[in-house]
Amino acid sequence: MGKKGTLMSVRKDVKVIDCTIRDGGLVNNFYFEDEFIKDLYIANIAAGVDYMEFGYKADYDLFDKDSYGKWKFCDEADIRAIVGDNLSDLKISVMADVGRTNLKRDILPRSESVIDMIRVATYINTIPAALEMVEYCHELGYETTINIMAISNANESDMRQALELIAESNVDAVYLVDSYGSIYPEKMRELADLYLEYMEPAGKLVGIHAHNNQQLAFANTIEALSQGVSYLDATVSSMGRGAGNCPMELLISFLQNPKYKIIHILRFIEKHIPRLLEQGAVWGYDIQYLLTGRFNLHPSSAIEFTKSKRKDYSKFYSELLDKE
Amino acid sequence: MGKKGTLMSVRKDVKVIDCTIRDGGLVNNFYFEDEFIKDLYIANIAAGVDYMEFGYKADYDLFDKDSYGKWKFCDEADIRAIVGDNLSDLKISVMADVGRTNLKRDILPRSESVIDMIRVATYINTIPAALEMVEYCHELGYETTINIMAISNANESDMRQALELIAESNVDAVYLVDSYGSIYPEKMRELADLYLEYMEPAGKLVGIHAHNNQQLAFANTIEALSQGVSYLDATVSSMGRGAGNCPMELLISFLQNPKYKIIHILRFIEKHIPRLLEQGAVWGYDIQYLLTGRFNLHPSSAIEFTKSKRKDYSKFYSELLDKE
Repeated sequence: MGKKGTLMSVRKDVKVIDCTIRDGGLVNNFYFEDEFIKDLYIANIAAGVDYMEFGYKADYDLFDKDSYGKWKFCDEADIRAIVGDNLSDLKISVMADVGRTNLKRDILPRSESVIDMIRVATYINTIPAALEMVEYCHELGYETTINIMAISNANESDMRQALELIAESNVDAVYLVDSYGSIYPEKMRELADLYLEYMEPAGKLVGIHAHNNQQLAFANTIEALSQGVSYLDATVSSMGRGAGNCPMELLISFLQNPKYKIIHILRFIEKHIPRLLEQGAVWGYDIQYLLTGRFNLHPSSAIEFTKSKRKDYSKFYSELLDKE
Repeated sequence: MGKKGTLMSVRKDVKVIDCTIRDGGLVNNFYFEDEFIKDLYIANIAAGVDYMEFGYKADYDLFDKDSYGKWKFCDEADIRAIVGDNLSDLKISVMADVGRTNLKRDILPRSESVIDMIRVATYINTIPAALEMVEYCHELGYETTINIMAISNANESDMRQALELIAESNVDAVYLVDSYGSIYPEKMRELADLYLEYMEPAGKLVGIHAHNNQQLAFANTIEALSQGVSYLDATVSSMGRGAGNCPMELLISFLQNPKYKIIHILRFIEKHIPRLLEQGAVWGYDIQYLLTGRFNLHPSSAIEFTKSKRKDYSKFYSELLDKE
């Protein structure tokens, strides 16, 4: 498949999605101060960001309300306390994990909600359950996406089957998710082509959610973009699980559409990121994440390494070799 | 031009060049402890690195000997104090800047030196002087490269003229140098093609030296590699001017040739990098470097910002806009 556009072009299909609360919430158990959320909402509007993801729609029956901040659950009232009726161009999304939500209880019809889009996160083997969730949300009037996690572990024939099913559904977009930060740009372009092969004829869009284990989150995002991917996930200061995500400030400064304005992201970072770091939140590229990325492993052992304040990278490397 | 090899292939033309002392020396004025240099030498040999650059061959008449560590000058005796006669497969290089060296006084015939390769750093407008230096070093028996800095500011017709001259010379390789960290992978692939168009017919190789202003140093390096670039510069822990370079640990872990062994680089990092940071050396990606990279500017103002411990990124952004 050919390239879409050049380094100079503005593509109308491109949408920037801020996942700072949702993926960043994995760093601090979703305990953000209200001022952080409010200022991020205002910054995103001013910066021209297209969607802001407020968090997960997790099931209270499965997760203890007292062990997490409110953005793990994203009650309608909590979102409204920040955005009112959201009289802005910024759309609002939440994420729903297969098997960890109770959508029938927890989702209102879209006409009664400030939420615009529901993103369903799934592994390749739970695509049928994900599609059921998508159809339910679509019926209620929401925009929807399917985010297939850990694709670096999926084989091509499973992926083709999944994409075929997705192409026949009512979903708006399907995401390439590099959960382990293990995918190189060359492979990412091939994956983008594969997704587009199924989605373009179906009139659906493709998205990318990258992790920064090998300092490739931004590179993979813009390479996927130039292959024709439209939905681009990013987080302020790269905040997100483990090595973090594609940094919003890099993405916004790259995009040619003049509606994107980095200054508002910079002001937000100056005000809030130092305080977050003082509170003990830790994320971002480090060698332990490079190693789990290279081994194509979930970052959990690297996150453990980070929490223990270990710096013996070579021993960690031996431990990973031992697990192979 | 087509791709060279796949993510699985081992290419014999690939050479990894460790520039930690040379580019890292710009961070600490070349004041490294001898143990650092000795351990890096040993680590590079064990890790399968192909070349280790010890520093600059700067002219004592132009630079005060007392204001810099010895690796600004790379006296033969100082290198020999580390490597003896260098009875290893690791080759040794030094860098010579156009207009800042006195090669006729400071370079021995290769048969009397432990240096294997002299890399001549030049801007596009001083290529004739660079070629004169190359021919002189070639006559003395050295391998040579020409490293064209700041190519993001050169126009294509100047570049074509330069490449034509270089193709006719006795140089072994020519480098793509992204001095400002402003080049995106898509453009880097085009530049690699342009360089290869002239160098392949002349039997010469192409190299890449990337900076990490936009977290693209590693991505640009491996993308250039897969276009056919052979000489790959990297530094341990990314140490280098401003945002730093392509991290050696990422590059070594990426390359498929089993001779490259990351464990030795990890052990070196554990032992030495924390101490270097304690001594006050500061480098690596931060937003001020993203901004100078995006503006295609020399990182000097961002380095100043870093030294002043400023964190007002939005004000710095306004200052850069003012300079346009």
